[in-house]
Amino acid sequence: MNNVLLKISILNIGDELLIGQTLNTNAAWIGRACTDAGVRIVRNVSVSDDAAAITAELDISLALSDIILVTGGLGPTHDDITKKVLASYFHDELLLNEEVLSKLKESFRRRKREFLPAHEQMALMPRQAAILNNDVGTAQGMMWKKEGKIVISMPGVPLEMKFIMQGSVLPLLKRIIEDKRSGMIYYATLVTAGVPESVLAEKIGDHTLLFDGSLAYLPSYKGVRLRLGIAAENFAEGSERMKEILMKFTERIGEHVIGQGEEELTGAVAALLKEKKLTVSVAESCTGGKLAAALTDLAGSSAYFAGGVVSYSNESKQSLLEVGESTIEKFGAVSEETALEMCRGVRMRFRTDYSVSITGIAGPDGGSEEKPVGTVWIGIDSGAGSYARLFRFGANREMNRDIAVHYALYLLYKEIKGEIN
Amino acid sequence: MNNVLLKISILNIGDELLIGQTLNTNAAWIGRACTDAGVRIVRNVSVSDDAAAITAELDISLALSDIILVTGGLGPTHDDITKKVLASYFHDELLLNEEVLSKLKESFRRRKREFLPAHEQMALMPRQAAILNNDVGTAQGMMWKKEGKIVISMPGVPLEMKFIMQGSVLPLLKRIIEDKRSGMIYYATLVTAGVPESVLAEKIGDHTLLFDGSLAYLPSYKGVRLRLGIAAENFAEGSERMKEILMKFTERIGEHVIGQGEEELTGAVAALLKEKKLTVSVAESCTGGKLAAALTDLAGSSAYFAGGVVSYSNESKQSLLEVGESTIEKFGAVSEETALEMCRGVRMRFRTDYSVSITGIAGPDGGSEEKPVGTVWIGIDSGAGSYARLFRFGANREMNRDIAVHYALYLLYKEIKGEIN
Repeated sequence: MNNVLLKISILNIGDELLIGQTLNTNAAWIGRACTDAGVRIVRNVSVSDDAAAITAELDISLALSDIILVTGGLGPTHDDITKKVLASYFHDELLLNEEVLSKLKESFRRRKREFLPAHEQMALMPRQAAILNNDVGTAQGMMWKKEGKIVISMPGVPLEMKFIMQGSVLPLLKRIIEDKRSGMIYYATLVTAGVPESVLAEKIGDHTLLFDGSLAYLPSYKGVRLRLGIAAENFAEGSERMKEILMKFTERIGEHVIGQGEEELTGAVAALLKEKKLTVSVAESCTGGKLAAALTDLAGSSAYFAGGVVSYSNESKQSLLEVGESTIEKFGAVSEETALEMCRGVRMRFRTDYSVSITGIAGPDGGSEEKPVGTVWIGIDSGAGSYARLFRFGANREMNRDIAVHYALYLLYKEIKGEIN
Repeated sequence: MNNVLLKISILNIGDELLIGQTLNTNAAWIGRACTDAGVRIVRNVSVSDDAAAITAELDISLALSDIILVTGGLGPTHDDITKKVLASYFHDELLLNEEVLSKLKESFRRRKREFLPAHEQMALMPRQAAILNNDVGTAQGMMWKKEGKIVISMPGVPLEMKFIMQGSVLPLLKRIIEDKRSGMIYYATLVTAGVPESVLAEKIGDHTLLFDGSLAYLPSYKGVRLRLGIAAENFAEGSERMKEILMKFTERIGEHVIGQGEEELTGAVAALLKEKKLTVSVAESCTGGKLAAALTDLAGSSAYFAGGVVSYSNESKQSLLEVGESTIEKFGAVSEETALEMCRGVRMRFRTDYSVSITGIAGPDGGSEEKPVGTVWIGIDSGAGSYARLFRFGANREMNRDIAVHYALYLLYKEIKGEIN
């Protein structure tokens, strides 16, 4: 097994990254994609659209890595200088590429846009570089090889960068690994829901007793993901060995594992509802529409989501959801009783199979000794019965709203699966 | 005037940035803060928690810039090595700092956490470095000066990094500018709403005819921001001159300017509703709760937001909002008539001063020749009257939902201000 990993650098070009106008989502995406491909990013640099700065960074990156992935600066405006700078760096020359030119003209024709003389510069390609096809934009990718090292240039538009990564760069990395010109780390991700990181860590214990590899906890308000990595010969061998390891982890964590890879709880809930041809409605207070928004995030959600009521005021809890005035008076708007009446009320209103309710104190104000900020009741009604559960989240309004939505989706998921909460 | 600007580099330390586990929001925040402070970031590097890699990047950054802002790697776990690496880089030594130690112990006492011997290492401070106070965490900031250059180390936790930036670093940059040891660019931001970038650009025309400085369009689904920059002597002088320039721009753009700086449309709407003691309710279809969620984003929203109905199904439009069955049959769920009946219905239900409705086709499915994906009707009812407006957005589901919310908030804002839409 070749255990030496390729070293890859990212070089992002553009002032907008330095002044904080644009969040560098490209670097994060490339980082994830390369990690998933089994190789690693060793550094990531952003510099401005300046020839001297770009040239200096190319020197540095080439000294420190095997492959440089350059993004940005390939557009048609005067501050897009990457192509010119790279061509000059490699003592290359830009020539009109007839193939690219006719592809561009054809694409303009299809989109009913006029092809202007100014657009011709997008077909000027460096003679020594291989062209990496971009079918979703006008700037082609380019690849130079020099003394065993590789420099690849891609547009900064995320859609176009991803197209070239998926179409050309990731397959290239895969070939390098398969040809044993680089070692690899095989990664897999377990997606969990309805469980805090600390509880997960306790269930798992010392992971080195479970397998010989790395484990990272990736927490977010959408649940905790576990990223597992093992040194592998190639994808087939790594994938085979990883299966067993994932089974061991799933045994430990049990019902909280909802999927692998890019799976999300909203998608898992949607798939369950669709598969069983069930419908759901929601009644929310402190989350203010966020649960409904999560359930309608995915295309085709009208198949299972009938609608919801955002009952922010106590009056609306009564008039729209039939929550008793005496219930709110006696137990308060944030109580088991109100949560139960809310989900029963909304299920009747929308005539759905299931319903979910959320009532709580998101903060920063409105808390009391007995019901501090972060107190949230979540109710579930399945027609056959209903129940509500109490949660105590934290002090942060935004986080409380997001975490409440996560647990509401998780309780719904468990209820539909028929697993006891 | 000293026109030479300070060169600042950011050095982010942490594997999580390279593998794409964490989006580098710190770099974007620092970039914005430094730009607002009048200085510029010339490069931004992320490297892994590796002593050799960090040392190499320190050499490079010091050669290319005047100030280096280092973030990350200051925690208590074994892969947090920044403090040790920096101390060794500056031939410094770590000593127990009694002042920091007693501050830490006091903070642990207050939070009722036990202070363990392992926590003492957080009070080991480099002898030659100035300590930059961190009151919101356990890792203090540190500052070394060397041959006229400055290296500052801060924790990677955003809250703690921001505390040290605001408490120590930004005031330091301000002093450097006021002492004329650096030139500055004075920036201001105009916030617009309800207008696409292309229309704005047409209204403004050639900005060099309006002022001698830079103009950047910062578009997002929350509206377009305009960032204006002028070379200035200091803040007072820049601020004075900028006032006139902002007036010129506001004249050009008119009613679409809703504020300056960090203002957002949700905040502007909330302020108006509170000021006039008005209430609002919403009825949404394609946005699935996102309008309600936006209106409840801010603390204290119960003062003006009564609630909403997410009427995803046609049945619920009828049963909860009193939309006529014949209206939907004759004109369709996505129509002026349905939008009007939805906002009238929800205002009656919640007995609010105003109401807003949204009904549209978010996509990717559900479009037709006559009503393609992106067709959205937004209705407003003020009690005194109601109207609905047609929008034709794009093909992207997520974007359609977000932009529809923006325009709904904008129409509400204009309605309350009594400006004709």
